Amino acid sequence: MGAQILIEPVALVRSPFHEKFAVPRQSGLAPSARGEVVLLPPFDDPATLDGLDGFSHVWLTFQFDRCAGQGWRPRVRPPRLGGNREVGVWASRSPFRPNGLGLSAVRLLEVVRAPEAKLRVAGLDLLDATPVFDIKPYLPYADAIADASGGYAPTPPEAVLDVRFTPTAQAALAAADDGTALRALIVDVLTLDPRPAYRPDVEPDRVYGALLAGHDVRWRVDGRGAEVLDVVAVAALR
Amino acid sequence: MGAQILIEPVALVRSPFHEKFAVPRQSGLAPSARGEVVLLPPFDDPATLDGLDGFSHVWLTFQFDRCAGQGWRPRVRPPRLGGNREVGVWASRSPFRPNGLGLSAVRLLEVVRAPEAKLRVAGLDLLDATPVFDIKPYLPYADAIADASGGYAPTPPEAVLDVRFTPTAQAALAAADDGTALRALIVDVLTLDPRPAYRPDVEPDRVYGALLAGHDVRWRVDGRGAEVLDVVAVAALR
Repeated sequence: MGAQILIEPVALVRSPFHEKFAVPRQSGLAPSARGEVVLLPPFDDPATLDGLDGFSHVWLTFQFDRCAGQGWRPRVRPPRLGGNREVGVWASRSPFRPNGLGLSAVRLLEVVRAPEAKLRVAGLDLLDATPVFDIKPYLPYADAIADASGGYAPTPPEAVLDVRFTPTAQAALAAADDGTALRALIVDVLTLDPRPAYRPDVEPDRVYGALLAGHDVRWRVDGRGAEVLDVVAVAALR
Repeated sequence: MGAQILIEPVALVRSPFHEKFAVPRQSGLAPSARGEVVLLPPFDDPATLDGLDGFSHVWLTFQFDRCAGQGWRPRVRPPRLGGNREVGVWASRSPFRPNGLGLSAVRLLEVVRAPEAKLRVAGLDLLDATPVFDIKPYLPYADAIADASGGYAPTPPEAVLDVRFTPTAQAALAAADDGTALRALIVDVLTLDPRPAYRPDVEPDRVYGALLAGHDVRWRVDGRGAEVLDVVAVAALR
């Protein structure tokens, strides 16, 4: 019926998230998840950013490129419903959707004009190298709808896990280049409990691992919360 | 640098706005602007809408198709700044932007599954027949950012015009099929003063006209506000 259109990336994301596992499921949930939105030519004229400094947040329209080509189905199982109940794809923010477009509101920390035109942002829920197709200012009067109701996801996911660190992990953070920021990122991400929502077989001793900001982070989950076992820099990703 | 992608419309908008002039400049500004988002095959399986009923608002990612092919420039003149000051395109919601994508949050009035799968919505700021490339539920906990600051557009545009009707216009509304809804739409739209922001030559007697919900609406503006002169059904658009 409608005409297809060709769109091209205007920017690429630099993010601490190198793999899908452990990426927060919406923007803003991990305030310590900082990164950059780097404009691509010919969209990187610094003049394109004039007037953006006064805005606290920006919208990014992006492609779920790591899910591209994997198709879509009319119904999906959102993690929010425990991963075992279905809703329609138009009632979800699932990456497996027609056209594969995503939408995130991220906090704008700084507008950088040179040597490359880019935005420093926080509250990211995007993978490193995600292609961005549009950047818009967040307009509070139009976008922040105070009386909106949120269906099956009326409130933020509860921070379910306390996060603690073994002496080994603490020593690794103390030796890291930016250990304080890395620790805050790890706490933000693990508090949200990134394990799959639907876990039919509880494995109490299972060690989980994720790449965060160029570090291989290992943790396990017990009745007290998440315990970070070790944090190891991954040379190839730094 | 980045890879181009091909996207296709998943829905088309049915809107009371048939021409660019007089379309509200953001979603939500004209609550009486009601319409439909009609799903296109193969995206119109009613199952795709399951679970959406509980949400009060949805995001529409659409193409500014009536501006397509007209290019973009690094800086634009937003109406909000009187039409004579420039900001960067990434600091604007201008339709003249790379990739030509727009973003609107509209109120969800009803989810209709048959005989066609569609959403009845309000607060539209989209032209009739606008192609929609994505529909997402509005998630208050992620999308309604209470502490956001809005740069050069911190507050909604002030409703600047009182709207009144001549006896001729009143009689025409009384005779119209859905005169009450049409009157509400006209008031919402004219209150926002759709005249061009930058008007170097004030023309007090100028008669403005716009097509609204299949009617040719004529009005003029004086010191008391906007006076609607006549409302005439346009057969070809009904």
